[in-house]
Amino acid sequence: MVLPPDETSEPKETVDSEEAAEPEGKAETVADLGELALIERLSAFCTAGMVGDDAALLTVRSGHQLVVTTDMLTEGVHFSDRTTPPETVGWRATAANLSDLAAMGASPLGITLALGLPAKTPWNWVEALYQGVADCLKQHGGMILGGDVCRAAQRTVSITALGEVIDQQAVRRDSASAGMAVVVTGPHGGSRAGLAVLLGELTAEDNSDYHAHWIQAHQKPVPRFDAIAQLRQLIDRQLIESRSETPYPTIAGMDSSDGLANALLQISSSSQIGIDVVRSQIPLPLGLKATVGADTALEWALYGGEDFELVLCLSFELAKELAKAGVVSIIGTTTHDSNVVQLLDAQNSSASVQVVHKSFQHF
Amino acid sequence: MVLPPDETSEPKETVDSEEAAEPEGKAETVADLGELALIERLSAFCTAGMVGDDAALLTVRSGHQLVVTTDMLTEGVHFSDRTTPPETVGWRATAANLSDLAAMGASPLGITLALGLPAKTPWNWVEALYQGVADCLKQHGGMILGGDVCRAAQRTVSITALGEVIDQQAVRRDSASAGMAVVVTGPHGGSRAGLAVLLGELTAEDNSDYHAHWIQAHQKPVPRFDAIAQLRQLIDRQLIESRSETPYPTIAGMDSSDGLANALLQISSSSQIGIDVVRSQIPLPLGLKATVGADTALEWALYGGEDFELVLCLSFELAKELAKAGVVSIIGTTTHDSNVVQLLDAQNSSASVQVVHKSFQHF
Repeated sequence: MVLPPDETSEPKETVDSEEAAEPEGKAETVADLGELALIERLSAFCTAGMVGDDAALLTVRSGHQLVVTTDMLTEGVHFSDRTTPPETVGWRATAANLSDLAAMGASPLGITLALGLPAKTPWNWVEALYQGVADCLKQHGGMILGGDVCRAAQRTVSITALGEVIDQQAVRRDSASAGMAVVVTGPHGGSRAGLAVLLGELTAEDNSDYHAHWIQAHQKPVPRFDAIAQLRQLIDRQLIESRSETPYPTIAGMDSSDGLANALLQISSSSQIGIDVVRSQIPLPLGLKATVGADTALEWALYGGEDFELVLCLSFELAKELAKAGVVSIIGTTTHDSNVVQLLDAQNSSASVQVVHKSFQHF
Repeated sequence: MVLPPDETSEPKETVDSEEAAEPEGKAETVADLGELALIERLSAFCTAGMVGDDAALLTVRSGHQLVVTTDMLTEGVHFSDRTTPPETVGWRATAANLSDLAAMGASPLGITLALGLPAKTPWNWVEALYQGVADCLKQHGGMILGGDVCRAAQRTVSITALGEVIDQQAVRRDSASAGMAVVVTGPHGGSRAGLAVLLGELTAEDNSDYHAHWIQAHQKPVPRFDAIAQLRQLIDRQLIESRSETPYPTIAGMDSSDGLANALLQISSSSQIGIDVVRSQIPLPLGLKATVGADTALEWALYGGEDFELVLCLSFELAKELAKAGVVSIIGTTTHDSNVVQLLDAQNSSASVQVVHKSFQHF
């Protein structure tokens, strides 16, 4: 049961949308559909047998642990029709949650998807959002395990993702130790550059050849299950070759959803280690430095966020193998310091050391 | 990364709250705290070791399946300061999700909790909400596995609950067959009556002795894990006594979160059976009929919703044992009809048959 609808209690939508500009009555809204019809249409996106009960049932394989993560996104804060069409909202929300699973070394089982929608939200918008979610799951694994829709003042997307990881092989933030290599699975700053293009901060005069690539980085980030899989393969091969009782090597780390700087700082503080990063070894998206200059490019790489790459600490032996295979770039090393991240000009150089401290705050 | 905050893009809160009436600057808000401090304070409610990684890790027992359900609640639609103080919002949101686990025959593992909050939300409100969540989990099982906070136009609570059920013993909506008893685990209409008191539809002149009881039914509903446990015990005892290879008996059903009528209709349509309910056998809260009359009491029992009792179909043999133990009331029987729920005046009577058809729609 819900409280009686009260027109005055529903604030105006905060972001002008294309749909709002359409003549009244043209686009079919969720209010036109009603809850039952809406749920029936959305069920088409869900795995057969997963809908129709109070809850979904699934099996976690024996020898695995369950991994759970959740995120809520709101229109006007995390997305707007200006920079993120609904397919993109769906893809990004899903990819962000899947990335948290990848960051734990897990593989995806599925997600739950709860939507808060103003009554006048066009059905097309909801359908496109679900399409984006379904596309991301199809490409990276997992299914829609359940959902909810409710009336809200503001379009809201809440996803919980479930994955499984082999017992004792979860990647944690707090298990790095001094002397490990620090690696990233890809360039940083691309998502921020894509946003700059979408917001008009960068215009056609600013190296427009790269714009589509940066927009792609912003709108369709990729959860790096592929990198985890290659890492596991490499380790398994080495363990087999060594034929000894070698314990499974420690991999520490997280994803860079809140920025590379944030990831490095979190690992450093959780593991009580220091991290030295060589500025020039941080991989940047093609064309970025030439377009916005070295300082802004570094700023965006460190603080832009939402690149959804993995930032891992592991043995130099493994790191070098992975780097040779093109899976990661080595950007630095862990040290006996505690809770400090430094940017160096070059390896073993103490000239112009910069302490990384900033991290984005939502409120 | 989030879009830059824009004061004009945050609609006014939709429901006047006590806090809003306080002199400006008195209550500490989430904006005063900032995201990191907010998360740190909320971490105090979470199980040690569950916070600090991209995702939580947990183990599902061997021989069990994972059960997942999700719900989103928004202020002004599902709750308001008028009828639901924050502790109650937290308790009810948690109980509603746990009830979905109980309805599947599962036991709780934990929940994820995502909050959307306007920047001026008082910290006290958030703390009290978490306290309500923690109280409900403490009493009924499960822990906080993870969460998210984000800025939103409207207070929003999104919960995903995880449970586990023994393989092949999940309670489904679609497995009822003709000739089963239909039972409920408790009275219906109490939550609606409590809301009526809170909204002033019922006043002190209307049998006020019962008001606290009805308000309790509305504000602190109980997920019926106890009924499932007693049912399992009874079945296990019978299976042991029979010493034969009797298969585990089929239990079908769901919870009555969207009303008793809705639950009966859903089971009837999913299982392609008919359900005949004897009007007088539907248990009502103490004092309700005397206060609002038989018709309104029945209306509230069928359509009021949020009583969070279980509506189960099972063998008459089991049903009678459970009824004798005071765990359930037998309200009717399943029939060879399909997708129809009838209210009868008395068992086997065809006089004054009423077809149940209504069900609440959110939009």
